[in-house]
Amino acid sequence: MPSYKAPTRDTRFVINELLDIESFGNLPGFEAATPDMVDAIVEEAGKFAAEVLAPLNQIGDSEGCTRHEDGSVTTPTGFKEAYKQYQEAGWGTLSLPEEYGGQGLPHVLGFVLEEYLATANHAWAMYPGLTNGAVTALLATGSDELKQTYLPKMVSGEWLGTMNLTEPHCGTDLGLIRTKAEPQDDGTYTITGTKIFISAGEHDLTDNIVHLVLAKTPDAPRGSKGISLFIVPKFLPDDSGAPGERNAVACGSLEEKMGIHGNSTCVMNYDGAKGWIVGEENKGLAAMFVMMNAARLGVGVQGLGQSEVAYQNAVQYAQDRKQGRALKDRPDPDAPADPIIVHPDVRRMLMDAKAFNEGMRALILWGALQVDLSHKSQTEEERAAADDLISLLTPVIKGYGTDRGYDMANAMQQVFGGHGYIREWGMEQFVRDSRIAMIYEGTNGIQAMDLCGRKLPANGGRAVQAFFKMVDDDVAASKDDEQLGDIAARLEKAVGEQKAATMWFMQNAMQNPNHLGGGAHHYMHIMGIVALGLMWLRMAKVAAAKLAEGAEDKAFYEAKLTTARYFAERFMPDAGALRRKIEAGSDAMMELTPEQFETAA
Amino acid sequence: MPSYKAPTRDTRFVINELLDIESFGNLPGFEAATPDMVDAIVEEAGKFAAEVLAPLNQIGDSEGCTRHEDGSVTTPTGFKEAYKQYQEAGWGTLSLPEEYGGQGLPHVLGFVLEEYLATANHAWAMYPGLTNGAVTALLATGSDELKQTYLPKMVSGEWLGTMNLTEPHCGTDLGLIRTKAEPQDDGTYTITGTKIFISAGEHDLTDNIVHLVLAKTPDAPRGSKGISLFIVPKFLPDDSGAPGERNAVACGSLEEKMGIHGNSTCVMNYDGAKGWIVGEENKGLAAMFVMMNAARLGVGVQGLGQSEVAYQNAVQYAQDRKQGRALKDRPDPDAPADPIIVHPDVRRMLMDAKAFNEGMRALILWGALQVDLSHKSQTEEERAAADDLISLLTPVIKGYGTDRGYDMANAMQQVFGGHGYIREWGMEQFVRDSRIAMIYEGTNGIQAMDLCGRKLPANGGRAVQAFFKMVDDDVAASKDDEQLGDIAARLEKAVGEQKAATMWFMQNAMQNPNHLGGGAHHYMHIMGIVALGLMWLRMAKVAAAKLAEGAEDKAFYEAKLTTARYFAERFMPDAGALRRKIEAGSDAMMELTPEQFETAA
Repeated sequence: MPSYKAPTRDTRFVINELLDIESFGNLPGFEAATPDMVDAIVEEAGKFAAEVLAPLNQIGDSEGCTRHEDGSVTTPTGFKEAYKQYQEAGWGTLSLPEEYGGQGLPHVLGFVLEEYLATANHAWAMYPGLTNGAVTALLATGSDELKQTYLPKMVSGEWLGTMNLTEPHCGTDLGLIRTKAEPQDDGTYTITGTKIFISAGEHDLTDNIVHLVLAKTPDAPRGSKGISLFIVPKFLPDDSGAPGERNAVACGSLEEKMGIHGNSTCVMNYDGAKGWIVGEENKGLAAMFVMMNAARLGVGVQGLGQSEVAYQNAVQYAQDRKQGRALKDRPDPDAPADPIIVHPDVRRMLMDAKAFNEGMRALILWGALQVDLSHKSQTEEERAAADDLISLLTPVIKGYGTDRGYDMANAMQQVFGGHGYIREWGMEQFVRDSRIAMIYEGTNGIQAMDLCGRKLPANGGRAVQAFFKMVDDDVAASKDDEQLGDIAARLEKAVGEQKAATMWFMQNAMQNPNHLGGGAHHYMHIMGIVALGLMWLRMAKVAAAKLAEGAEDKAFYEAKLTTARYFAERFMPDAGALRRKIEAGSDAMMELTPEQFETAA
Repeated sequence: MPSYKAPTRDTRFVINELLDIESFGNLPGFEAATPDMVDAIVEEAGKFAAEVLAPLNQIGDSEGCTRHEDGSVTTPTGFKEAYKQYQEAGWGTLSLPEEYGGQGLPHVLGFVLEEYLATANHAWAMYPGLTNGAVTALLATGSDELKQTYLPKMVSGEWLGTMNLTEPHCGTDLGLIRTKAEPQDDGTYTITGTKIFISAGEHDLTDNIVHLVLAKTPDAPRGSKGISLFIVPKFLPDDSGAPGERNAVACGSLEEKMGIHGNSTCVMNYDGAKGWIVGEENKGLAAMFVMMNAARLGVGVQGLGQSEVAYQNAVQYAQDRKQGRALKDRPDPDAPADPIIVHPDVRRMLMDAKAFNEGMRALILWGALQVDLSHKSQTEEERAAADDLISLLTPVIKGYGTDRGYDMANAMQQVFGGHGYIREWGMEQFVRDSRIAMIYEGTNGIQAMDLCGRKLPANGGRAVQAFFKMVDDDVAASKDDEQLGDIAARLEKAVGEQKAATMWFMQNAMQNPNHLGGGAHHYMHIMGIVALGLMWLRMAKVAAAKLAEGAEDKAFYEAKLTTARYFAERFMPDAGALRRKIEAGSDAMMELTPEQFETAA
């Protein structure tokens, strides 16, 4: 059976040493995040994830969810009990506002928890995970009455939330949705239609489920300008706020999927269900994006999560499994075979995953800090600067994080050879589960277009220029350093490739937008390399300083320096190749007629 | 339900126009391969695969195989009947020697059949597919008596064969095997031990199953120099050659796997089974390699296969599914949405797969031709030259072909968005099935070491120098051509990266072999890019000539030219990045202690 231990040492390194969140103690919420508090949360969250959730991961995969004839859904053995523990411990309240019963702690800590949950049990973590997006949308655009009715119960985790966007004929293109919302005299709406791929759409974890649903009012404009957002509870709250009358929304069936079997992916039928509008009519897309952006960061975390757990198990296997002999320096020259961790190609895969995971963890928590700063910094300018950065990096964290996270899960499966393909070892589940993260909450192709078509040009390129300045400043500060100089020089080269690609888009995309579309995915990957490269340069700098001052835990800091070098040597060269692909343009890509794609005679 | 049509037009292009196999008509077997014969075989093989095997692919996945209490195994619905048709039509005899009842046709045609079978139904195709390797090993090293007893039945497909190498504690490192072979007075051996991951180890397709088994005799030297190869039939042939007494070999259990559920992956227990030695004692590894090299090419074909069928379905979906609007030149400006094939990022994925598939198909059939020429060319020199090339390229076809084939299956799944993750569309099965090809018959890390540690230095680098010369000659011939010049220039650059990486190995691997091990996988990928690049340059040349002479089917040849350009622009740049990674060396890769890989506190 695969195992999981929360990487608490690495998390503390990022929070305390890299981000130094204590230095933000003057901001609301951060004052409570003392080093002791951070330590306690990190340790306890890690324990819950490792001890309660991880043991349910394979069970969830093999049992899956069961839909009964009445439309109710039973989750796999142990899921409900684990949720009860989670809720009673108040984990869901961590970084939610105190006003509604939350603890008001920084999102940095909320993301640590999210990482551990998603790593230990991707499918389980989606039940509480999707609620975050729903809460964020309600907070941003809901009426006071809706907030008072739903937020305390959703913050406490008594009720869980869902996001209902997709329909059979419409996924990415939400302008095509057909679900109808008829206004009623009492100010409510009657919702009718079918939604598909609704994660956690129906389950037995909570007494009530709160659906956030996109629908169109009768006279709505065509396309995405005519979408509104509604809140549709499974049970209508009665006068005391408790679940009352059953609403006309039900799970019609469960999808059979490649993975995340422990999560119920539902077809949801709305048959004249009662709903309340969230925000204004026809402004649903904006509210949806608030919800979506929170969800996208969460999906990036999932990319890291499955890569991390796969890595941990591969490291263990590589130390236990003995095959072949080291090409050099055999650990035991008399043994018939050496542990496979001695083989360079196994090392290559393990180092790839280590460099990716630790870099992504730093980037995600740095991103979470930007979320905090975008709300809590003292000046409007500081808030805008943080918002610029996290808006720019959200598609990168989601798209690059899940593309590469999937690659790493596959590489870790590869370390197991034939055993990686067999169910019982659990590695193939990590691959199947992590595959969804490249698809949902906007495919990675959509992330790339969000980055290049929307985020890059926004405000005259203000955000990406700020990003370049941040990288340039760090490069300049380390370029002449003996230990960091080579890493900085390689990062300078990589960001140079990104700048050149940005310039190429500026010069060519206006005349032919397909040049932008054809290069967007590659650009997202260049930016992922540069963003992780920046994190690695910063981590190396911290590690070098710690070693210079004679810190304990020398092996940890030396590993950081070595891994930073590895990242610079083995990840950064791709930036140049990706730039060359972008600069090839989209002519060959777009030239064929649909018929020319057919391969049969 | 996914569909499949054999890409017969493209196959005929490769055989007749690119390889021009008619020009080899003076060689044995080729004289029968007239254009009419080739056409008939291609069409009929395609029909059988598409009409009989493809419809069983999803059934095989959902039903899987069933082991009964007596150790017998039932294959999924329809598999047995399909095999009967296959055998009665004599498909298995295509390129096997006439001496044993085969048709003696070129391997080029045998590989076409293999591609179609593996594409239509990967799991089914493994039953006859593994027999090829067993037949090859028997032909090369079996005694006349063994050949007479087994080959006619295996060639006709009346009996199927298996390869029994892996044991619980030993996969790659066959020197560790423990299965024992005790010599008996009658010249036979008594085989005892456990083999795992035995594909098609037990099934209901044939009356007998012929196991080729690696084992150690009592006084065998330690390690891989003490391995012998045995033939162990499920039923001992009686005096008439028919299946007689049951041998003491049985399927102990079936593995639960990520995919290829339609194939029975068995634990095989040898409990004093009767076996006959194939070749000499302690020379089993060499015999095994004969078997393995045939099997590895077959696995490369599987890499192409799943990518091809995934591609065909993605092309169809991309034309049917309507989401979003084209960035430029909408096909129907009044439609609410356009087919997603208009979106550059969808095109990018489809063109990637098209460029890979058609390039791989050319490389595989070119490789099959080298197999033919290595046996049938008129001079020893020509035979050696062909053998050099196919020995060099075998790990590339297997390793690069399956790594990238898997990437493409995943990209094609991505085209489907959320629907790609759902069982019924079939895309996720292609991903799960194709994943095994990177692992079995030697993981791709082993392929990389075979290429760099064994094939590159063999005979003073003779093979790779011949490969470089072949590429250089083609580049030189096309460099000044208006239509081909840019493709040739980009190929020249890519092969330059390969030459530089080769040189770097020569200068550094002696002093530290980990530098070779740490770069081998990247090198294999550079060589894959160059090899496919060479095929694309040649295909572009043929297409340009056809267009110049005013051939019909203009759209086909124009698509070849465009796709060649796309390959040059979008695949070749990676060669430079891979070289830079190789030249970074293995120091950072090998530096950490095993403890430094641990992530928990």
